[in-house]
Amino acid sequence: VIRADLLAGPGKVALMNFIGDRPAMVFASPTVSRIFGDELRDLAMQLRSWNNELITIQTTEQNKTLQTVEAILTKAQSRYFGRNGVFIGVGGGVLLDIVGLAAGLFRRGVAQVRIGTTLLAQVDAAIGIKSGVNVGKAKNLAGLFSPPELVVTDGRFLSTLPQRHIRCGLAEMIKLALVRDEALFTAIETDGHQLLLESRNSETSQRLVDQAIRGMIGELEPNAYETELQRVVDFGHTISPRLESDTNFQLHHGEAVAIDLVYFCIVGQVLGMLKQDAVLRIVALLDRLGIPRWHELLANLDFIASALDAAQAHRGGQLHLPIPTRIGAAQFVSDRRNLTGIVLKEASEIGRVL
Amino acid sequence: VIRADLLAGPGKVALMNFIGDRPAMVFASPTVSRIFGDELRDLAMQLRSWNNELITIQTTEQNKTLQTVEAILTKAQSRYFGRNGVFIGVGGGVLLDIVGLAAGLFRRGVAQVRIGTTLLAQVDAAIGIKSGVNVGKAKNLAGLFSPPELVVTDGRFLSTLPQRHIRCGLAEMIKLALVRDEALFTAIETDGHQLLLESRNSETSQRLVDQAIRGMIGELEPNAYETELQRVVDFGHTISPRLESDTNFQLHHGEAVAIDLVYFCIVGQVLGMLKQDAVLRIVALLDRLGIPRWHELLANLDFIASALDAAQAHRGGQLHLPIPTRIGAAQFVSDRRNLTGIVLKEASEIGRVL
Repeated sequence: VIRADLLAGPGKVALMNFIGDRPAMVFASPTVSRIFGDELRDLAMQLRSWNNELITIQTTEQNKTLQTVEAILTKAQSRYFGRNGVFIGVGGGVLLDIVGLAAGLFRRGVAQVRIGTTLLAQVDAAIGIKSGVNVGKAKNLAGLFSPPELVVTDGRFLSTLPQRHIRCGLAEMIKLALVRDEALFTAIETDGHQLLLESRNSETSQRLVDQAIRGMIGELEPNAYETELQRVVDFGHTISPRLESDTNFQLHHGEAVAIDLVYFCIVGQVLGMLKQDAVLRIVALLDRLGIPRWHELLANLDFIASALDAAQAHRGGQLHLPIPTRIGAAQFVSDRRNLTGIVLKEASEIGRVL
Repeated sequence: VIRADLLAGPGKVALMNFIGDRPAMVFASPTVSRIFGDELRDLAMQLRSWNNELITIQTTEQNKTLQTVEAILTKAQSRYFGRNGVFIGVGGGVLLDIVGLAAGLFRRGVAQVRIGTTLLAQVDAAIGIKSGVNVGKAKNLAGLFSPPELVVTDGRFLSTLPQRHIRCGLAEMIKLALVRDEALFTAIETDGHQLLLESRNSETSQRLVDQAIRGMIGELEPNAYETELQRVVDFGHTISPRLESDTNFQLHHGEAVAIDLVYFCIVGQVLGMLKQDAVLRIVALLDRLGIPRWHELLANLDFIASALDAAQAHRGGQLHLPIPTRIGAAQFVSDRRNLTGIVLKEASEIGRVL
């Protein structure tokens, strides 16, 4: 993972040296193409990449499919793009998920470089080794663990990001802080709002983002392939996939994560695992940063039960639900039977009026 | 890798113990379903597998696509089939390729058991860790390295196999023998025809198949992920993918391999790397076993040049062409420039009249 001014001289040279004389394909999301297209096309040409083109991929969740992956493979194949090739993805989580899977499958795997352009991607998708696409309504049902060769973080991409996207990234940072890093939580309380200002690529902001990236890597690295199914980073990701798909992705990922994490903090409070003070401090931070933390679907206990079923299946038959015990530490509720209807209902009622 | 009477008592019990209480899905090709369906359905029920069903997958090359993989993932998802699930593939190479890729992608990878039912699958596809599907005309362009948890070899499946399929398996065994194992070659000369007789599951036949399996594992294991791109087992697989696709898969895989291997033995002869005696001995064995060894496409030098381009791209930009130097050993021709038009033309002319 390097931090580099990708589009300016030195960062570009570093990337070019890294790629060397390997053939490359550069993929970007429509938004990135629109805003940074000229500079990225310039990069693609200097890399002597596929057809000297910047390839734009539609990055809606509806387009995150095996069909899109297949279209990428067909394009690569049409130019005898070989096994020594490198796929370079420049975009948010959806783009990195699609391009990562295509890289993992093309000729049974070629190298990939991940360049996150949203805050969420920089602190999460870009540094993970997961890729995946949706199958029907099932999020990321088809995917891989395939480590990138290089990850580049460039704060300049954040400068044009809508506030809603910044808030999604902050939600993921708060999630990470809650389960492992009280200092990060305090830092977000102090400086998180700076990422929402014009000067979001300030030194303070960069420091905060780097702190979150280090924390995430520290958490992911020992368990990159998820052989251990108890993962604290799954916090906020228990019912959030269903929140996203059941709202037809009107809720963005970070928003669903925030709503999920608050709900299970309240469940922790109901179970006596987490103090109410902590819950209120978490809620206050989310409110201050303008991050949503409730959705009417949570009032529907059938929805919660079925979302828990899905999470349980994904985690290998056990729930492995992380619940913070204080800000900066979590424990697992692995047995579904601890989450009785009464507990879930009480949490819903508290959440609705909080 | 175990040899077991899968459909009879002891073999079935061994498999059931291996699966334990994990959820399973059992996939079979249409032919296997038709001939062994009752016994396999019985197995599926005893495994308490998905819906107690034996799931039949169309296994034409035209059906070996990401769409078929997606259909499998959708089926698995519909029953909350979890990350601890096991995909069991029972069939030839195409079925194992499809099911292996589906297992590698489902929830970023679940366990798979590979049970080859053709001779070719038993000595090759089942014991490899490769899976893949076609993208357009490009064979196996989308694929993975994903090791099976268990491989079961059961000679009973061979008993109903058409001779054409047996010949395909023998071609792959001969290929392996040529590049690494003179004793295997001699054994095929002595006993290979037994596999074409009624009594093809005899002890002699089983010994011959096991010898080929051991040889293949010995060759694959140190380089399972193909980080070393010089692979002697690529012998017979240089222009054969194009032979298959350009004949719309009228040529079966083993037939294309035989045609490819004879052609490049002759190239070796033209280059002075392999003695004519050896070429004649190889040809004599193929003829005795009734395996084809020439196709008119080889008279077209443009076809050969474009097939070599494709192989070179697949092998990371260098040709890495294995050529036997005697029966049981091979060397690589990595520089394409050694294969001048004159050499290729002379080999074509010799091959056509041999």
